[in-house]
Amino acid sequence: MLNENAPMALYHQLREVVLSKIESNEWPVNSQIPTERELCEAFGVSRITVRKALSELEREGYLYRKQGRGTFVTSPKIEQRLSRFYSFSEEIRKMGYTPSSKILDLTTMKADKKIAAHLQIEIGAEVYNLERIRLANEEPFAIENSFIPYAVCPGLSAEEIASNGLYGTMKLNYGLTANQAVETFEAVSIRADEAVHLTVAENAPGLLLERVTYSNLIIVEYCRSIIRGDRYKYRIVLK
Amino acid sequence: MLNENAPMALYHQLREVVLSKIESNEWPVNSQIPTERELCEAFGVSRITVRKALSELEREGYLYRKQGRGTFVTSPKIEQRLSRFYSFSEEIRKMGYTPSSKILDLTTMKADKKIAAHLQIEIGAEVYNLERIRLANEEPFAIENSFIPYAVCPGLSAEEIASNGLYGTMKLNYGLTANQAVETFEAVSIRADEAVHLTVAENAPGLLLERVTYSNLIIVEYCRSIIRGDRYKYRIVLK
Repeated sequence: MLNENAPMALYHQLREVVLSKIESNEWPVNSQIPTERELCEAFGVSRITVRKALSELEREGYLYRKQGRGTFVTSPKIEQRLSRFYSFSEEIRKMGYTPSSKILDLTTMKADKKIAAHLQIEIGAEVYNLERIRLANEEPFAIENSFIPYAVCPGLSAEEIASNGLYGTMKLNYGLTANQAVETFEAVSIRADEAVHLTVAENAPGLLLERVTYSNLIIVEYCRSIIRGDRYKYRIVLK
Repeated sequence: MLNENAPMALYHQLREVVLSKIESNEWPVNSQIPTERELCEAFGVSRITVRKALSELEREGYLYRKQGRGTFVTSPKIEQRLSRFYSFSEEIRKMGYTPSSKILDLTTMKADKKIAAHLQIEIGAEVYNLERIRLANEEPFAIENSFIPYAVCPGLSAEEIASNGLYGTMKLNYGLTANQAVETFEAVSIRADEAVHLTVAENAPGLLLERVTYSNLIIVEYCRSIIRGDRYKYRIVLK
């Protein structure tokens, strides 16, 4: 039971109780938790208190709601360590998930100002635009547009990328080793067209990750990823 | 004029035109840009094309809308380099802005499970909860809750923090040098109560930054910051 006279706010006490049930596995991953009404009755608190506790846990990524279905326990967020150069697939595998990706499109286009600036090529120069969905255990977590200078990887094929990955193909067919990157992160709302691919609601929180990848001193890729905020987090050690 | 037969989609061409006007300073920071209707007429394109171009630029942080007032050019995002230990104030100053912060509250409380785990102290142990708004040029960009073990900084005062900052106070009064941190970043929607302090719309995109700060081997702070997505980005070099 919660204690109205405790110094900790009621919703905070309830949050702790719910969290301990999640962490002890009493309420396992993907299971449905009791309804708001059931929680009100079980703990003798108001609907407002229950909502506040649940929405905090939802924001923190412990719970998710399905429209008209109820509230469920999420699997833990994928935590990406930012310490050295990484590839999504490798990192996902290290975290015990099975990585996969789905190629939506591979086309050539002329670099606009922004792409040209990132790749340090002329505006209008030919680039590949590779659009992929990234998945962990079959669940999509990112949608990615990679721009690769045509001159760096002429004759790039979707089949090769599907079997060996982009960096694998660069290495096998072009002798390029993606080994360095500059990344920026920012928070965005996920757009309707992206939300469909990511299976989240429109305007759900997401990260925009922009990466310029180098093979030694050659720029081999400029990549823009939209990453689901509810499934991914980044971790860094600063000294 | 835009070219309907060009390989680049019309909205993308329009995006480029608008961007070049922003970057050339023809449309300076905080100025209002033409209305959607004016852009349709000027470029001979549909409302849908204009909206798509503007919403992309808004998402990328070049433009912002004021309800019923129109669309304006943003000042560039503050870019935080993640390479070594930093303090917000120092970094803001380096980027040419004037940092300030407003203390909302300094209270003591008992550590809940999460706070205790981060600070590696007993659940229920006394901690300070320091709540601050961070500003750059008087504009709020983050709301921050720092939890500091009472045992590490007994007698902490809001006045001292107001004059010397938290890390300054730790150094001057407790001989502690905040010099190392572990940070995690994730994307969140900004809650109504936080949105008021940050002067953004409810559910606007934000970053949740959690930091555990060390003075050599002593944990001196666990901090949770909610950062405006439209004003801040992070940059990291990976090798």
